[in-house]
Amino acid sequence: MRAAVFHGPGDVDVADRPDPRIEGPSDAVVRVLLGCVCGSDLWYYRGESPHVVGPIGHEFIGIVDQVGSGIHLVSRGDLIIAPFTFSDGTCVNCRGGWPSECLRGGPFGTDGIDGGQGQAVRVPFADETLVTVPGSGHSDATLASLLTLSDVMCTGHHAAVSAGVRRDDVVAVVGDGAVGLCAVIASKRLGAKRIIILSRNPSRQALARKFGATDVVPERGEEATAKVLEMTDQTGVDAAMECVGTGASMNEAFSIARVGSLVGAVGAPHGVQVPIETVIYRNVGLRGGIAPARRYIPELLGDVLRDRIQPGLVFDFATDLEGVAAAYRAMNERRAIKSLLRIGTR
Amino acid sequence: MRAAVFHGPGDVDVADRPDPRIEGPSDAVVRVLLGCVCGSDLWYYRGESPHVVGPIGHEFIGIVDQVGSGIHLVSRGDLIIAPFTFSDGTCVNCRGGWPSECLRGGPFGTDGIDGGQGQAVRVPFADETLVTVPGSGHSDATLASLLTLSDVMCTGHHAAVSAGVRRDDVVAVVGDGAVGLCAVIASKRLGAKRIIILSRNPSRQALARKFGATDVVPERGEEATAKVLEMTDQTGVDAAMECVGTGASMNEAFSIARVGSLVGAVGAPHGVQVPIETVIYRNVGLRGGIAPARRYIPELLGDVLRDRIQPGLVFDFATDLEGVAAAYRAMNERRAIKSLLRIGTR
Repeated sequence: MRAAVFHGPGDVDVADRPDPRIEGPSDAVVRVLLGCVCGSDLWYYRGESPHVVGPIGHEFIGIVDQVGSGIHLVSRGDLIIAPFTFSDGTCVNCRGGWPSECLRGGPFGTDGIDGGQGQAVRVPFADETLVTVPGSGHSDATLASLLTLSDVMCTGHHAAVSAGVRRDDVVAVVGDGAVGLCAVIASKRLGAKRIIILSRNPSRQALARKFGATDVVPERGEEATAKVLEMTDQTGVDAAMECVGTGASMNEAFSIARVGSLVGAVGAPHGVQVPIETVIYRNVGLRGGIAPARRYIPELLGDVLRDRIQPGLVFDFATDLEGVAAAYRAMNERRAIKSLLRIGTR
Repeated sequence: MRAAVFHGPGDVDVADRPDPRIEGPSDAVVRVLLGCVCGSDLWYYRGESPHVVGPIGHEFIGIVDQVGSGIHLVSRGDLIIAPFTFSDGTCVNCRGGWPSECLRGGPFGTDGIDGGQGQAVRVPFADETLVTVPGSGHSDATLASLLTLSDVMCTGHHAAVSAGVRRDDVVAVVGDGAVGLCAVIASKRLGAKRIIILSRNPSRQALARKFGATDVVPERGEEATAKVLEMTDQTGVDAAMECVGTGASMNEAFSIARVGSLVGAVGAPHGVQVPIETVIYRNVGLRGGIAPARRYIPELLGDVLRDRIQPGLVFDFATDLEGVAAAYRAMNERRAIKSLLRIGTR
């Protein structure tokens, strides 16, 4: 098969790789329809995080092609969503609701596990990992939205859930990347009445408003803080979402969170120092992390299929698998919010 | 009147101060029965935090002596508990449940506000601030426990509430000071089935067990982490409470918290760096801070009066007001868990 391969910082291409096959009874092999590039892929692409040389990509939807002898819940021909990690469904973390922290699981597209940026993927613990999509004849737009449930929409949802977003809340999203935009969708879905996004990019501002943002703050740093406080009678927001992962964005989120609220943080941290004085002297808490996508997908899937949410609109660049290098470049140069890879056909 | 005064690091004594009087309609003047020294008083006593020269102490119970013209809820002769901060009950933070963050309030015993380590205190917003104790003829032991509701027991409770302690949880308390010991009481009260305290001091270990601790870990640092993980099938505890405020104790709490749990932190932070990688990659959250004592007192008061909890046992040193310097020294030298000051008579 053909699959994207990481050779080193800035160096991604497509190569021939062995066709995946069933290796154990709980395996399935999935033929990938759509994959994409994650903001977190850029960390190693830019050389800012380590990554082994080999297959990449952890977000994909596809068609089940082969199943192991122990598989009961998915069948050849099923359209499935793969969460960005596989998980056994039985360990203490899975049972506790944290499948992305499975003791026997791990992410796709690293450490020799097939990546979602390739024609096929062997999925361990396939019964517990994969989510079957009901219905048939889904539009390309629906398929793109289903793909976001693999990671980015679940991660935006995790930011909102972690920040404790509730009906009628005034909330703020720090970060206008695909995760931040999905956090806007999630906030609206959870009933927030006012959704402020910090963004200075016109096309991202427009998409944020389409997703439900009521206010856009283009300022940065202390000016952004002052603006949000001014908008909230100097009180701060009921829930703040940190969707970047830098020290500046974390400080921004804490600076606009009201006393007693929570910062929901989902950005992979790079140079972050939590402002502990704000935690203690203003009782602003911090929750978040790697999203438990496998737990969230069933809940969000229905809203995608009923067209209540359209997270697939975050894809503003598309190519085929052979164009993967261009897909990375477009995101790295911030020409694209998120790059879609059209890999297989139904 | 006589009142304790802070002159500078290591220098606390008792001096003559003006008798407090009603200055506005919402004031009351309280004659102090019992005061005490807080672990947080030691920060400025040791010169590790700033403090203005002047009256000190923020924990006290007493008898209402005078009330302003606008007071309706407390009366001359009432036995009252003062939370460690006064609060107006009407600002956005008070209405949100965070009276210790009142926009017009502040702590007793600083910035010219009378301290609880003195014979009398003018209490602003007395109707909203003070909590009247029902009944009469309370024993000295009960009065000591009522005094802890002013701060330390509410702070231990806040650690447990912030960590999300629930029935049948396995929990750990980092810190065997008075706050940590009260966090043990709070954990038991909230139904934790196993309560691990990190302590190497025999008398504190004994008191922790009396309060409901089921396990004592005398190890420190990585050895303590290994021990707690061993006790929890390598999973970590359901809730971890940080009751010290140092970087080492914060790291300890995060290192033993299970995936998806919360660290409840109430120590005044000194040199704390939150381990953000644990937050993000293990989904361990952080909540806590300055306890909303005024909110918690009514809930805890009933349990003290019914003798269900005995937090007053944290006092293992007692003196009168003139002995305040000795009270500070005993705690500073760790000869005492917490020092009681017997100031007035009923």
